[in-house]
Amino acid sequence: MKARVYVSLKSTVLDPQGKTVRSALAGLGYHSVADVRQGKYFEISIEPGVGAEQARTEVETLAQDVLTNPVIETCRVEFDA
Amino acid sequence: MKARVYVSLKSTVLDPQGKTVRSALAGLGYHSVADVRQGKYFEISIEPGVGAEQARTEVETLAQDVLTNPVIETCRVEFDA
Repeated sequence: MKARVYVSLKSTVLDPQGKTVRSALAGLGYHSVADVRQGKYFEISIEPGVGAEQARTEVETLAQDVLTNPVIETCRVEFDA
Repeated sequence: MKARVYVSLKSTVLDPQGKTVRSALAGLGYHSVADVRQGKYFEISIEPGVGAEQARTEVETLAQDVLTNPVIETCRVEFDA
């Protein structure tokens, strides 16, 4: 079982890294791009013996409590079998 | 229109950052986690006037050519309206 955690900055938080990527892309001729926001992405493999329900709870907890800074970031978790 | 680009290390490439996250999680008591691999995540907003087909082509090109280092990374692109 695998889980994917996407952590991104809240929309109210400035993202200078994304702005830099955006202006670099504009400089390279990619003019369709209005805005870029950068985030983090974690691919988590679950130990084989662990049940789906327990894995789900544990990954959701660690995504919220460890991988995300709730003051400035939000996270999204996806699972596949 | 928005596009999401996920860049992750190829499975053959070592990921010391992911390993560090994994051992930190184990230290915190999250024992269901077998492995963690860390990647990058870009949320790209497209300029309103640009057609879907052109946006798609442009984002796929920039994801492959600019956001990804093809020697060690792969990317995945998703679109939504």
